[in-house]
Amino acid sequence: MIAPDRLRVTYQLTCAPGEDPAARARDVAYEQTVELPPACVPPDIAARMVGRVEALELLGGDRWRAVISYDPAAVGSEVPQLVNLLFGNVSLKPGVLVTRVDWPAALVERLGGPRFGIDGVRRLCGVTERRPLACTALKPIGRSAPQLAELCRQFALGGIDVIKDDHNLADQETAPFRERVARCQEAVMQANAETGGTSVYVPNLVSGSPRVVEQVELARATGCRGVMVSPLVVGLDTVHWLAQRSEMAVFAHPSLSGVFFRPGHGIAPEVLYGEIFRIVGSDGVIYTNSGGRFDFPQAVCDAINAKLRQPLGAVRPAFPVPGGGVDAKRAPYWIERYGVDTILLVGGSLYAQGDLVAASRRLVEAIRRHSR
Amino acid sequence: MIAPDRLRVTYQLTCAPGEDPAARARDVAYEQTVELPPACVPPDIAARMVGRVEALELLGGDRWRAVISYDPAAVGSEVPQLVNLLFGNVSLKPGVLVTRVDWPAALVERLGGPRFGIDGVRRLCGVTERRPLACTALKPIGRSAPQLAELCRQFALGGIDVIKDDHNLADQETAPFRERVARCQEAVMQANAETGGTSVYVPNLVSGSPRVVEQVELARATGCRGVMVSPLVVGLDTVHWLAQRSEMAVFAHPSLSGVFFRPGHGIAPEVLYGEIFRIVGSDGVIYTNSGGRFDFPQAVCDAINAKLRQPLGAVRPAFPVPGGGVDAKRAPYWIERYGVDTILLVGGSLYAQGDLVAASRRLVEAIRRHSR
Repeated sequence: MIAPDRLRVTYQLTCAPGEDPAARARDVAYEQTVELPPACVPPDIAARMVGRVEALELLGGDRWRAVISYDPAAVGSEVPQLVNLLFGNVSLKPGVLVTRVDWPAALVERLGGPRFGIDGVRRLCGVTERRPLACTALKPIGRSAPQLAELCRQFALGGIDVIKDDHNLADQETAPFRERVARCQEAVMQANAETGGTSVYVPNLVSGSPRVVEQVELARATGCRGVMVSPLVVGLDTVHWLAQRSEMAVFAHPSLSGVFFRPGHGIAPEVLYGEIFRIVGSDGVIYTNSGGRFDFPQAVCDAINAKLRQPLGAVRPAFPVPGGGVDAKRAPYWIERYGVDTILLVGGSLYAQGDLVAASRRLVEAIRRHSR
Repeated sequence: MIAPDRLRVTYQLTCAPGEDPAARARDVAYEQTVELPPACVPPDIAARMVGRVEALELLGGDRWRAVISYDPAAVGSEVPQLVNLLFGNVSLKPGVLVTRVDWPAALVERLGGPRFGIDGVRRLCGVTERRPLACTALKPIGRSAPQLAELCRQFALGGIDVIKDDHNLADQETAPFRERVARCQEAVMQANAETGGTSVYVPNLVSGSPRVVEQVELARATGCRGVMVSPLVVGLDTVHWLAQRSEMAVFAHPSLSGVFFRPGHGIAPEVLYGEIFRIVGSDGVIYTNSGGRFDFPQAVCDAINAKLRQPLGAVRPAFPVPGGGVDAKRAPYWIERYGVDTILLVGGSLYAQGDLVAASRRLVEAIRRHSR
C-alpha cells in the first residue's frame, strides 16, 4: 500500500511472559534507527530519526501488532539501507515479524520497480493474447551445454514461452555460462525460426558482484532479453541494478528465501515476494506453489499474487510465477484460480512425460483452451 | 574442517511423525542438486551430481543427523552457487539445519578467504602488541558528516584502533557517503598526526551491485584501508569481490543474518559467521555478543571465535568482533575469555560516558593492561 509520507512497517511482536509490549515496540524503533540508549540520542535526532510507534494492539495470546513509522530520510534511496531498516538488526531479536509495509510514494518512485512489468513481459515474449505464459526450467545440473541447448530446442518447438535455466546452473565446467548461454539462445532462435514461435530463453545470472556486468553483456550480446537471479543469494541490490541498468526483464528465483518464513519471525512471504521483490525491480517472481514440492498454504499464494499485481504508485505490476512442482495436468485449475496474468512454471512434470515437444504442446494448448 | 575431496554438509533434519528420515535425507540430496524426481535423472548425472547420503543417525527425539556430500563440480567456483548448494531450495522445506561443513581444500583455496586476516589487520592498524583491538561505531543515523567527523576525531584522540560507521549510515542526505568518508577519514588522520596514533576509519559500503566499485574507489582515494559491509544485505558475492579486488580489509556486519538462526532450521551461527563469512573473505566478523542487546548464548560465541581462528587449509584466520552492547567496563572479562586475537566492539557504552576521548582512553588502557 502507498503511505502518504513516512515508511510505515507493521510488525507482529511475540512477547515473552511478563514482557511489556510497548517497551518491545520502542526497542524495535530504536534498534532499527539510532542503535543507542535513549539518553545518548541528541533530542533533534531522536525527534526525526527514531522510528515512531504509531499503533500497538493485542492480536491475541502473546502476540501484538505494532505499527512503526520511519522518516524517509532514514532510508535515503538505496536498497541495502531499505533492507536494514525493514529487518536488519531486529532479525537478531526474537519474535519480530514484518506483516505489512506502507510505502511512501516518493520512495517507490525512486526505487522504480520492474522495468517491463506484466505488459512489458508479454510484449517481450510476443504473447498478446490474454492467457498465462508457460515457463519451464532447464535441468538438471550436470548436463552439458549442448545437451541443455537440445532441451531448449524441444521446449521451444513445443511452444513454451519462457525457457529458463535452473537456478543452480552457474558457471560450472559441465556447462560453462558463456557456452551455455550462446548455445541455448541459438537453439531457441532456430526453433522459433522453424515454427514462427516467440519463445524466450532466460539465463540464470550467478554473480552478485560487479562481475555481473560481464554476464549481462554476454547474455545481451547473444540476444537474450531476460535474465533470472535469486535475489536473496545475489542480493536485492543486484536485482535493482539489473532493473535499472540492464534493459533485460528480471525473473526472481526464491532460493534461500525460506529463512524468512518462520512463524512469528521474519518477513511475511507476500511482503517479501509481493512487494519487496517487486519494488526492487522483479518483472516476474517465482515462488513455490501450493500443492507442489514445497507446499506454501494456498492463502499465501493468493496473497503473493494479489500483492504483485495490485496498484502501487507508479510501480508496474509483476507476474506471479508459481512453480516448484506444478503438475502440467492441473494447469486448468491454476488458470481458473490465478487468472491470466500468471506465468505457470512447469518443470519436472514435463520431463516426466518423456517427449518434451509433445508435453510442451499439450501444456500450451491447455493454457490456450482454458484462457478463453 | 577440510575434507579430502567432496563438499560434506551435515544437516540436522527434524522429521514429522511417521516421516522416514532416509527419504528426507534423499529428498535434500535431490533438491539441492538435480531438482527432479529420480526417474527423470540420466543415470550418469545421478551418479555424479546428486548429493550422496554418507551417514544418517538418530540424534534423539525426532531429530536426525544426515551427512550429504556433493561433487565439487556442482559448486564450481562461485559464491552464489555455493550458497544455493548449502541451503538454497531446502530453506523452503521444514526442519533443515546446517550444523557443519567439511570443505574441500581446492574449493576454499579457490575462494581464497580473507586478504588480510588477523595478522594483516594488525599490521594495517599498526598494532603489533599482542592485545585485542578496540573498535567503536559512529552513531546515530541523522548526524551530519561534520558531526560524525568530530566523533571520529574524539575516538581517534582516545586511541580507538578501528572507528567504523554504523551499518545504517548509507548515502542519506543527512550525511552523504562522499562527504562523510572524506571528512571522517581526514579527522582520523589529523588526530593520528596529533597523537602519533594509528587509528583507522572504516566506512560502511552500502551497495551490493556494480555501484560498489565507485564507493570503493572513493574510499580508497581518501586513504581508507578497510571497509564494512553487511554480507546478508549486500550479498556474500560482494564480500568475495571486495576481498579479491578492493585491496581493503573487509569487516562483516551481521545485519539480517538473524533469519538463519531458528531452532532446527537454517545455518548454525558458527558455520555462517565462522566459516562462510570467513571463506568468502571477511577479515573481521562482527557478531552480537553474549550478555549484550541481542544475547547469543555464550557457547555460540565461543564456537564462532574458534571457527574464525582455526586452521582451514590456506585460508587466513579472521578476527572475531563481538559487539552489540559490549560494556566497556567488562573489557577485562572478555579479554580473559576470548584472548588477544579479538576486536572488542564497544559502542553505546562509550557514548554513555559523555567524554568520548576519556572513555576511549580508559577502554584502550584497560585492554593494554589486561593483555599482559
